Formats: sequence, C-alpha cells, structure tokens
Amino acid sequence: MAQDKIVFVYITFPNSEEAQKVGRILLEKRLCGCVNLFTNINSMYWWEGKIEVSQEAVLIVKTRESLYPEVEKEVLKNHSYSCPCIAKIEVSEVTPCFYRWLLQETGVEI
Amino acid sequence: MAQDKIVFVYITFPNSEEAQKVGRILLEKRLCGCVNLFTNINSMYWWEGKIEVSQEAVLIVKTRESLYPEVEKEVLKNHSYSCPCIAKIEVSEVTPCFYRWLLQETGVEI
Amino acid sequence: MAQDKIVFVYITFPNSEEAQKVGRILLEKRLCGCVNLFTNINSMYWWEGKIEVSQEAVLIVKTRESLYPEVEKEVLKNHSYSCPCIAKIEVSEVTPCFYRWLLQETGVEI
Repeated sequence: MAQDKIVFVYITFPNSEEAQKVGRILLEKRLCGCVNLFTNINSMYWWEGKIEVSQEAVLIVKTRESLYPEVEKEVLKNHSYSCPCIAKIEVSEVTPCFYRWLLQETGVEI
Repeated sequence: MAQDKIVFVYITFPNSEEAQKVGRILLEKRLCGCVNLFTNINSMYWWEGKIEVSQEAVLIVKTRESLYPEVEKEVLKNHSYSCPCIAKIEVSEVTPCFYRWLLQETGVEI
Repeated sequence: MAQDKIVFVYITFPNSEEAQKVGRILLEKRLCGCVNLFTNINSMYWWEGKIEVSQEAVLIVKTRESLYPEVEKEVLKNHSYSCPCIAKIEVSEVTPCFYRWLLQETGVEI
C-alpha cells in the first residue's frame, strides 16, 4: 500500500465560530490530526455586480490524503455556504514523528 | 485542452492597503476568483547587514494556472517593492462547485 | 545540477517569541531568505482524551529545497515541542528576481 501522503486542507468560513464547530466535528470523527484557525481575514470577491469585502476565517486541516473525500463531505454537510472553498494542498515532506502521530490520531495502528 | 488547475498565489505586501488595492485590480481585470488578506504578519530578513523585523500583509490570490503570468505581471506593475515575493502554490483538488464558480468569475463560459 | 526549487516550510510554535527566536537562528545560519510569522492562531487537537484548543503561532520559512534537511534539523534542535509540525510545501513558480535574491541570501554565488 503506497504511503498515505499528508495534505493541508484550506477552508474559508464566514466566522471563527463556524470554523471551530466544523474543526471539532472533523476531530471527533478522527478525520484529521489537528486544525489551525486563522481569524480576521479580509476576503474580496465579486457579489451581485460589485466587489465585496467581507471578514472570514481560514481553517487549515492537517490530514491524510486518503481521508480527503470524507473531510470534504463532512465540511459540505456542516458549512453555511452553498459552495465553500475547500482546497487540498500537498505536503511534500513532514517531520517523521509528526507523520506517525497524525496516522495514530486518525486511527491507523502503528 | 487539459483542465486548468487552481493555484493559490502567495504575495507579501508592506501593508494591507496596498494588498487590497492590488487585490481589487486583479478582481476588476477578472484575473482571479477571490483573494484572502492576512494582516499583521511579522516578517524577518537580512537588510543592509542586519536582521530586520517588519510588519507585512499576505494576500492569497485564488486563480487558474493559465492566468498566473498575467497575475504576476499585474502585481509587479502595481507593487511598491522592486522585487516582491509572488509564489504560486498548486492546489491538487478543490470542491467541484468552487472550481466552476472560479472559472465563471474569470471569464470562462460554462 | 537541477535547479533548486523554492519551498515554504510551515511550522507551528507555542508562541510568537519562540517562532521569532527560531526564525532568527535560521536567518543567522543563512538557511532561509526570510520568514513570515502569523500570530494568534487557534489550534485544536486531541490531548489526553479530550479536544484541546490552544493558541499557537505559525512560521512560514522561505528557502531552497536542498536546505530543507538542515532547516528541519535546526528547528528540531530549538523547538520546545518534542514533535513539532514541520511541513514542506512546494512552490511551483516564483518571481525570477525573488528567486535570485533568495539564492544570494542563502549563500549561492550568482
């Protein structure tokens, strides 16, 4: 079985409360090792013909590549946007001890 | 035509005003779907023989890989640094609906 | 010799003081071009049977891929965690002038 890569999943939320709620769900379901929450992010995008500026929060979810489909499904189920940005970024190398820790935290027997 | 990948472009600015100004230009020219602005970042680097600590802002621009050269050109044209950090990071997967939204926001007929 | 790629090394710390201390060591040893420090990050993870929420800082270290083993070694030597998250993310493209600047800052004759 090819080694399961580590990925960072970058997700934007309307506020930190919702980001923490979803982060907690992912942890409870053992779908990630940990999350980092960045708050007070200013986002800009087109909305109804005008460029909108709004405050968001960014959650970085650290998990295994094979768990990504379940992470995406769980986030979509609990997110208030109809179409949130859920973006998978590959980690090409990580500290060996952190790799083992993350496998154990997500239910892999080592 | 190979599917146009989504990329995140990580750019540092001296302050959030300039970051917002450039983000707005990229949106007006439909060179990205949206931007996330991180403020109050402390940066450290060598400057004139000593290690300097200064406050910066980080802008993450979400766009399509094929638009990257134009994004880089537009940022270089409007940035106050003579040599800013403009770094392209590949997104290996993103929510399908967000992908379609970003294509439409950057002028692709779907 | 294949071109040395640019990588971002994403490292979490218990606080910004320790992140700055390690960032300074990496700069003094010319193991990176610069660092960006993100503060007031909320992290969530399992700890002794319960989901813990704690404040952390995130340091993004911009360096050359061939220096990554030394960066990892130096961070492990100076980090207060027994098993910190040190994660290498590849940058697929960067502004040519920034690339040259980073090579020079890390001791490459150009």
